[in-house]
Amino acid sequence: MATTSEWVAVDWGTSNVRAWGIAGDGSTVFSTGSDKGMGRIGKADFPGVLDELIGVQMAGPAEVVICGMAGARQGWREAPYLDTPADLHRLNAGSVRPEGADARFDVRILPGVCQRQAGHEDVMRGEETQLLGLLHLQPGFSGTAILPGTHSKWAEIRDGRLVRFSSAMTGELYELFAEHSVLRHALTGDRTGPANEEGLGEGIQAGLARPDMLTSLVFRTRAAGLLSAKGSDWCSGYLSGLLIATEVAGHRDWLDGAPVPLVGSERLSRTYCAALKRLGIESLPIDAANATIEGLKGARAQ
Amino acid sequence: MATTSEWVAVDWGTSNVRAWGIAGDGSTVFSTGSDKGMGRIGKADFPGVLDELIGVQMAGPAEVVICGMAGARQGWREAPYLDTPADLHRLNAGSVRPEGADARFDVRILPGVCQRQAGHEDVMRGEETQLLGLLHLQPGFSGTAILPGTHSKWAEIRDGRLVRFSSAMTGELYELFAEHSVLRHALTGDRTGPANEEGLGEGIQAGLARPDMLTSLVFRTRAAGLLSAKGSDWCSGYLSGLLIATEVAGHRDWLDGAPVPLVGSERLSRTYCAALKRLGIESLPIDAANATIEGLKGARAQ
Repeated sequence: MATTSEWVAVDWGTSNVRAWGIAGDGSTVFSTGSDKGMGRIGKADFPGVLDELIGVQMAGPAEVVICGMAGARQGWREAPYLDTPADLHRLNAGSVRPEGADARFDVRILPGVCQRQAGHEDVMRGEETQLLGLLHLQPGFSGTAILPGTHSKWAEIRDGRLVRFSSAMTGELYELFAEHSVLRHALTGDRTGPANEEGLGEGIQAGLARPDMLTSLVFRTRAAGLLSAKGSDWCSGYLSGLLIATEVAGHRDWLDGAPVPLVGSERLSRTYCAALKRLGIESLPIDAANATIEGLKGARAQ
Repeated sequence: MATTSEWVAVDWGTSNVRAWGIAGDGSTVFSTGSDKGMGRIGKADFPGVLDELIGVQMAGPAEVVICGMAGARQGWREAPYLDTPADLHRLNAGSVRPEGADARFDVRILPGVCQRQAGHEDVMRGEETQLLGLLHLQPGFSGTAILPGTHSKWAEIRDGRLVRFSSAMTGELYELFAEHSVLRHALTGDRTGPANEEGLGEGIQAGLARPDMLTSLVFRTRAAGLLSAKGSDWCSGYLSGLLIATEVAGHRDWLDGAPVPLVGSERLSRTYCAALKRLGIESLPIDAANATIEGLKGARAQ
């Protein structure tokens, strides 16, 4: 295993930032991160946070390639969106060089992608890099991929281009319900353990059957807690299954029968996989961090 | 106009409590209220809050008829739910007498209604009284009524019975998005003024067309703000129209072409009315406080 990093790959999100030192042979030398995401720091703080993250490991000159919210208007420096259909093999051409970084770092921030069609306005920052990573992990991939998360993305890729995409606020909705809504009384348990299979299954079934009734079906989480004495782990499984299955059912016309890559955490992907299976669709789980690193490698080489 | 109240009608909600002094001829002598809803006070506080509200106006013995969350398990005293199909003309038979009230008050709390069918579990407390009020305001009413609000209710009434109902978290979802989600950045304006007609119209159209895509269409509020420079009043109108139209579209099979009573605030009812109109359905706006008072009168006379 190589012990010297040649360059640094960075995923700078809204809540967190992660960095990986990459050796000349492509292996990962170190991995680090903090909660200093774009949403928690000011424009002037970016150089200092980067130094905190990689200053010790990277003593000499090094390239730093960043994807994600560092390129947002409120980030380090705005990297204007590419428009759909966006050629994923030309992400680097849209990158910008921010000011203020330590002199030994050669920093680039990759652009996000936007979709301007009226009624379908949408934006992504970071997922385009994961999609490029997907193309490296599954060469020649064509079709629909799902990137589960706070703001899940459904992406259609044809000939290396991101043709169209659709965001769903599934992950954020779960947090809103669990933290701030009347349902929080029914969701008091530990939500990091394995999901309650019965609740999850009922939620998936309800969401697939009636995605148009989400605002009513979520209320059932509370009513079932009151009337049927369902425990908080059932309620949390039900809500999670319901939200994910609703997202899947709403995007049914994106599915053509082919297996679907799922680029996300193992925990989330498992529920997407179960919902897709009920529609007769196989899925291919892909580790999100791995896709990000592969995408940043690919963009650097463009 | 009568100047002496014979009894007191009370609507004790989660966030607020309202009380009306009612004369022997049925006219309202006084109206009062506070923010000491069930969610903000303990069981032992109810007698004191009632005294604060009506102690001065009601010097002598008086009946007090209460609907709403005072009858919840965490309220003053639990008034067990009636089951659907629930005879609205027998609400009083399910009422309970709580302890601790000042000796001159004869207090009754009306029951809520629950629906236990698996997959359709649902609960209401307070709306059953408004529905009884509706039967007094529209004698012989049969069909579907909508009660817009934090947790909107769709109710089917046949022969004076509440046959089935369905809650939707529409109002609470709006607040969650506006206060706690990433969309709050796009919803910074005053939300109490008249809604932006263009945003409202686009939201209604999107919700009616694709109620199954709500979790994606809400994200458009943010994307449209970023890409099309839509102002916060457009975004707030869009979100409001989208959520309400999604609720309406999801309940399409509750509509049989007959005009639909809308028991709610004027502001909310206007958007429901616009969404229903696009489906060719007329609506009959009914003031929510009026329906509550009529329902409490009706229950007292049972």
